[in-house]
Amino acid sequence: MSKKKNYTLGVLTSGGDAPGMNACVRAIARTAFGESINIVGVMNGYEGLINGEFKRWKNARDVGGILRRGGTVLQAQRSERFREKNGQREAIRNMNEEGIDGLITIGGDGTLNGAHAIAKQGVKVVGIPASIDNDIWGTDMAIGVDTALNTITESVDKLRDTASSHTRAFLVETMGRNNGYLAVQAGIACGAEIVLCPEFPTTVENVAEIIEDAYRRGKNHAIIIVAEGATIRSTELAEQLDALDIGFKTRVTILGHIQRGGSPTAFDRLLAARLGIRAVQVLLEGQSDVMVGLRGRDITLAPLKDVVSNTRPVNLEFYNMVRNLAQ
Amino acid sequence: MSKKKNYTLGVLTSGGDAPGMNACVRAIARTAFGESINIVGVMNGYEGLINGEFKRWKNARDVGGILRRGGTVLQAQRSERFREKNGQREAIRNMNEEGIDGLITIGGDGTLNGAHAIAKQGVKVVGIPASIDNDIWGTDMAIGVDTALNTITESVDKLRDTASSHTRAFLVETMGRNNGYLAVQAGIACGAEIVLCPEFPTTVENVAEIIEDAYRRGKNHAIIIVAEGATIRSTELAEQLDALDIGFKTRVTILGHIQRGGSPTAFDRLLAARLGIRAVQVLLEGQSDVMVGLRGRDITLAPLKDVVSNTRPVNLEFYNMVRNLAQ
Amino acid sequence: MSKKKNYTLGVLTSGGDAPGMNACVRAIARTAFGESINIVGVMNGYEGLINGEFKRWKNARDVGGILRRGGTVLQAQRSERFREKNGQREAIRNMNEEGIDGLITIGGDGTLNGAHAIAKQGVKVVGIPASIDNDIWGTDMAIGVDTALNTITESVDKLRDTASSHTRAFLVETMGRNNGYLAVQAGIACGAEIVLCPEFPTTVENVAEIIEDAYRRGKNHAIIIVAEGATIRSTELAEQLDALDIGFKTRVTILGHIQRGGSPTAFDRLLAARLGIRAVQVLLEGQSDVMVGLRGRDITLAPLKDVVSNTRPVNLEFYNMVRNLAQ
Amino acid sequence: MSKKKNYTLGVLTSGGDAPGMNACVRAIARTAFGESINIVGVMNGYEGLINGEFKRWKNARDVGGILRRGGTVLQAQRSERFREKNGQREAIRNMNEEGIDGLITIGGDGTLNGAHAIAKQGVKVVGIPASIDNDIWGTDMAIGVDTALNTITESVDKLRDTASSHTRAFLVETMGRNNGYLAVQAGIACGAEIVLCPEFPTTVENVAEIIEDAYRRGKNHAIIIVAEGATIRSTELAEQLDALDIGFKTRVTILGHIQRGGSPTAFDRLLAARLGIRAVQVLLEGQSDVMVGLRGRDITLAPLKDVVSNTRPVNLEFYNMVRNLAQ
Repeated sequence: MSKKKNYTLGVLTSGGDAPGMNACVRAIARTAFGESINIVGVMNGYEGLINGEFKRWKNARDVGGILRRGGTVLQAQRSERFREKNGQREAIRNMNEEGIDGLITIGGDGTLNGAHAIAKQGVKVVGIPASIDNDIWGTDMAIGVDTALNTITESVDKLRDTASSHTRAFLVETMGRNNGYLAVQAGIACGAEIVLCPEFPTTVENVAEIIEDAYRRGKNHAIIIVAEGATIRSTELAEQLDALDIGFKTRVTILGHIQRGGSPTAFDRLLAARLGIRAVQVLLEGQSDVMVGLRGRDITLAPLKDVVSNTRPVNLEFYNMVRNLAQ
Repeated sequence: MSKKKNYTLGVLTSGGDAPGMNACVRAIARTAFGESINIVGVMNGYEGLINGEFKRWKNARDVGGILRRGGTVLQAQRSERFREKNGQREAIRNMNEEGIDGLITIGGDGTLNGAHAIAKQGVKVVGIPASIDNDIWGTDMAIGVDTALNTITESVDKLRDTASSHTRAFLVETMGRNNGYLAVQAGIACGAEIVLCPEFPTTVENVAEIIEDAYRRGKNHAIIIVAEGATIRSTELAEQLDALDIGFKTRVTILGHIQRGGSPTAFDRLLAARLGIRAVQVLLEGQSDVMVGLRGRDITLAPLKDVVSNTRPVNLEFYNMVRNLAQ
Repeated sequence: MSKKKNYTLGVLTSGGDAPGMNACVRAIARTAFGESINIVGVMNGYEGLINGEFKRWKNARDVGGILRRGGTVLQAQRSERFREKNGQREAIRNMNEEGIDGLITIGGDGTLNGAHAIAKQGVKVVGIPASIDNDIWGTDMAIGVDTALNTITESVDKLRDTASSHTRAFLVETMGRNNGYLAVQAGIACGAEIVLCPEFPTTVENVAEIIEDAYRRGKNHAIIIVAEGATIRSTELAEQLDALDIGFKTRVTILGHIQRGGSPTAFDRLLAARLGIRAVQVLLEGQSDVMVGLRGRDITLAPLKDVVSNTRPVNLEFYNMVRNLAQ
Repeated sequence: MSKKKNYTLGVLTSGGDAPGMNACVRAIARTAFGESINIVGVMNGYEGLINGEFKRWKNARDVGGILRRGGTVLQAQRSERFREKNGQREAIRNMNEEGIDGLITIGGDGTLNGAHAIAKQGVKVVGIPASIDNDIWGTDMAIGVDTALNTITESVDKLRDTASSHTRAFLVETMGRNNGYLAVQAGIACGAEIVLCPEFPTTVENVAEIIEDAYRRGKNHAIIIVAEGATIRSTELAEQLDALDIGFKTRVTILGHIQRGGSPTAFDRLLAARLGIRAVQVLLEGQSDVMVGLRGRDITLAPLKDVVSNTRPVNLEFYNMVRNLAQ
C-alpha cells in the first residue's frame, strides 16, 4: 500500500489507567513496525498532545518489557484544557507539526469523548476502550476489567478465611463510579451475600434482613460488596448495620486504587493485543471516529458518536444470580 | 411446575479436573435448592455411578466454601468400565435405584462422550464443558481454561525476569494434549518468540533461525512455548537447539499439572456459575443429550452428538499474532 | 517413655486468627500421632473449652489438607467468660473430664494471658505465638506476620502501578493495633515515603512537608503507611492533606481483614511446624506455663509470666530506614 | 567524615540472579546518596568490570521503581575471564581509572570467590550473599531464598488440588545445585511425602515403599520433591517408580528458572535493604574482604576467606521433619 508510505501513527493513554494499557501500546507499536509505518508515543494523554510531548519510537525494542506492567508507560492524565476548543486546536496543531496522520486513544468515557471531539474537526482517530469500570457502551469488555475483577476476587477470598473463623460480615467497597458492573460480577465470583450498586438501590433494613437470614441459615460469615456509586458508602453502612443486631460483627475493607494496578491477566493482555492490532488496521484502512470493541468473540467497530451518547446497563440477571447462589 | 415435584438431580465430574469444577457444582446444587428439587453428588465420576457412590446434599451449606477451591470435591476419575455397555447398564440401574431423574456431567471430551452414550439409552443428561485444553467443540471457552492460561502467564513472567538478566532462551512445555489452543494463547499473553503446537508443525532449524534472529535484533531473552502435543518434546528440542549455536543458552520448564490446579479465576467462576445454572434449567425444561456452552456473551446449547464428533480448530490468526508481536 | 502412655493432648486456637494456625495445628497433631499419644482439638478457643466442644482426632488424615489454608479449622473466638475465674474453672473441669493432660494454645496476647491464668491453677499448658501484629514479647516473629507483610506488600505494589501514572499519594491503613511493627516493616518493603505509627507520633504538617519534598525531588508518587494505632486515622489524614496543597492528590486504601487471610507463606508454615513440634515436646518433658518462640534461628522458651507482662518495642532503626531509603 | 569526601562506591551483581538483587542495589545507592558519596553501577558483573561498563548514578531517582522487580537491572553474568589473573588485573585497572574506592559485589559462591580474589590484591571489597540455593556459608539466609521457597510452595499447592482428585504422585524438581536446602524446606512447607537431596541419598525402592505406605494409609496423593543435585533426576525417578506398582500414577513438574524470578517477598526486600545499607557502612568504616550476612536477627560480618572455604550443611533435623509431618 503506497498509502502507508511515511504514515505516522500516534498513540496516547488518557484518564484513569487500567491494567493492559501497556500491552495495548506494545501491540500497536509492534503492528506499526510490522507495517513499516512511523509510531509516536504521546506522553500524558491529551495534556501531552497540547504540550507537544512526543516520543518517537525507533524500533520494536523501545516497547520491550512492558507487556506485563500495570499502569501506563505513556502516563495517563485527565486534561481540563482539552475540554475547551482552544486546547483541542492547540493539540491538532501539534499533531500536524509532528506529522501525525492518525491517532489511537486508549482510555475510558472521557478519553473517547475527547477522541470524538477532534474527529469531528477532521483528525483521523480510533478509540480503544480501557477502564476497569466496564461502563463503556459498544464493547463487552474494556481493557482492565478482567484484572480488576480478579484483584477483587483474590482479596475477598482472603477475607473469607478469617470471616469463617469469626462470624463476621465484611463490607468490601469496589470501584466502578456510577456503574455496578464490577460490583455485581465480583459478587458472583466471590459468593457475596448481597451487592449494593447504583442501578438497584436497596435499604439498610433489607441488607440487615438478608444478613440476619444468612446467620439463621447457619452461615458463619457474610460478604457484602458495595459499589462506590451505591446510595450509601461502606463505612456508613457498617455503622448502621452495627446499630441493628444482625448476628455478625461488621468490618470494612476499601480496596481503592489497588483495583487499578497489578500485572494484567491473560485475558486483558489478549484483548489488548487484539484491539491494538485492529485499531492500527482500521486507521490504515482510512476509517475514523470509531471505537474498536469486543462483541462475543469478534473485534467490531462502533461509531464514537454512539459510544459517547449511550450508557452500558448492568444486567439484572447477573444481579439476581448473586442472591440465588448465596443461599 | 408440578413436574419438578420430587425431581432428583445428579451431578458428577469426570476425567482430568479443571479449576472451576467446584464453582460449577456449587451453582448446580444451589440452583437445585432454589428450585426445591433434590440433588445428589456422584463421587468419582462414571466409576462412582457404576459403584453407586452417591452423596445426597441436604441443604445449600453442604456445598459451602468450595467456590474458590481448585480440583473437584466430587473427585474426577477416568473409567474404563464405563466405555463398555455393561458398565453403562450398571450405572443406569444405579441411577434408577437412587431415583435420579436427570444427570449433569462436568468434564472434557471423554466425559461428554459418556454422557452421549447413556443419553442414547434414555437417560436425561446435560453436559458441561470443563477442560483446561479448550479442545471441546461447541463452546468458546471450557471451564478451567482461563485459570490455566493465567497460571502459565504468571510462570513465564517469572522466567522473563531471569531471562533478561542472562541472555537465555526458555522452553516452556504446556498442556493441551492434541490441541494447541493453550500454547498459542499463552504465546500471545506472554510475548513468546514462537509457539510449537500440533496444528502448525515446524522444524528445529526454523526455531533456531527465529531465536538467532531475535538475538541479532538485540533481544536479551527468548521464550519458546511448546505444546505437549507438538511433534517434538521440550527437552529434546532444548538439546537440539543447544547443539546449534543460537546465541542463547536454553533452559527447560515443564509446568505439568500445576496448570490444572489453583483457585479458579473470576472468569472461570462466572462461567461455571452460568453454565451450571443453565444446565439445571435445561434438564427441568425436559431437554437432554445436549451440552451447554458459551458463544459470545450467551449461554447456548449444542447437541452432544455434534460435540463429540467435531474438533475445535486452533485459530491461525492467533498463531500468527505471536510472531508479529514478538518482533 | 511410659510417662506418655495414654497421654492426651489438647490444642486450641483463640483470639484473632492468623495465617499458619492450621499449619501449626497439623504439626501438633501429627507429632502427637508420631509419639503415639491422643490428640483432641478444642473448637472455638477458650469458649469451646468452657462448653466442652472437643473433637478427638483418630489419625493423621484427620488434619490432612489444612496445611495451606488460611483461618483456623478449630475456629478462633474471643471469650469474655474465660476472663472470669468461673469460666476458667468450668474449662478446667471439662479438660479433666475429657482426660486432657496438657494443652497447647495458639494465639496472641489474650490467648497467652488465658494460658498463664490456667497454668497458675495447675493446668499443664504451653503457648504458641500467632498474631499478625507481631506484638508478642519473647519471639522474633509470631505465626502469621510474614504472610500479612506479604499481603500488604503485594497490595502496595499494585497501588504503585497506578500511582506513578497519576502523581498521586496513597494512604494505606494497616493492622497492628497498638503496635507499629507491621506498618514499619511494610514501609521498608514497599518503599513508602513515611510511616505513621503509635510509637513515633508525627504531625500532619510534617507528613505534608515530606510529601511536598518528594514532589519537588521529582517523585511522581508517594506511599504513606498508616498503622491503625496511629494518632490519626487514614481517612482523616487524607482530608487534612488534601486541604493543604502538597502537589499530590491523596487516595485511601483500608486493607482491613484481608491482612488476616490468605494461604500462609513458606516462612509461616515452617515457623508453625517448628513451634508446633517443639510445643508437644515441651509438654511431654513436663514443662508448663511457657511459650515457645523463635529467637534468631532457634526455637526457645519464655515463661508466660514474662510474655504477658512485657511489650515488644518497635525498632527505631527500622523506622528511620524507611525515610532513608525513600529519598 | 572527611574520609568520605569524594568517595566513589561501585556495585555489581554477578552469577545467577536472585529476587531481591534490585532491592539491594537500590538500598546501596540510596545509602550512598544519603552519605553524599558517589555511586557507580557496574553492568554485567565482573565481565563488565573487565570491560569498563560503568553507569554513574546522579541521584536517588536513578534507582527508582526497581525495588519490586525480579532479576537485576545491572545484569548478572558469569565471567570466565575474571577467573584468570589477567582478567582481574584488567578489572582493577578499570576500577582505578573510574576512581572507584570500594566495591560491593552481590551474588553467590562464584561472586564471593571473585571478591576475595581481588581483595587479596588490595581492592576494598565487601560481598553480599544472593543465591536462591542458600548454599553460602556465613549467613542464615541469602537474598532470594525466601522468594524461591514461596514460588515452589505456591506451585506445589496447585499440584495438590489436582493430585487429590486423581490419586497421583507428583515429582517436583527444584533448584539448589549441590545443596538440598531449598528442597528440604520446600518439603516441609508443602507437606511433601519425601525429599530427595544430595546430602541424604536414598534408593528408588525406599521411595517406592514410602509412597506405597502413604497409599495404604489412605492418602489420595503424594508429593515428592527432588533436588536438582540428587543422585537421580526427576524424570528418571518417575520412570522407575512407574515400573514398580506403587498405587499412584506419577507425573513430573520441572520448575526450572521460574524459581529465580518473581517479585521479591517482603522478607527478601527487608534482608536486601539491611545487607545493602550495612555493606556501605562497612566499606566506609575501612573494612574489606568480608561478607555481610544475617545471623539470627543481626547483620554480621564474616571474612570472605572463611565464606569461600566452607560449605553450608543441610540440617538433618529439617530433613527428618518432612517425614514426620507427612504421616
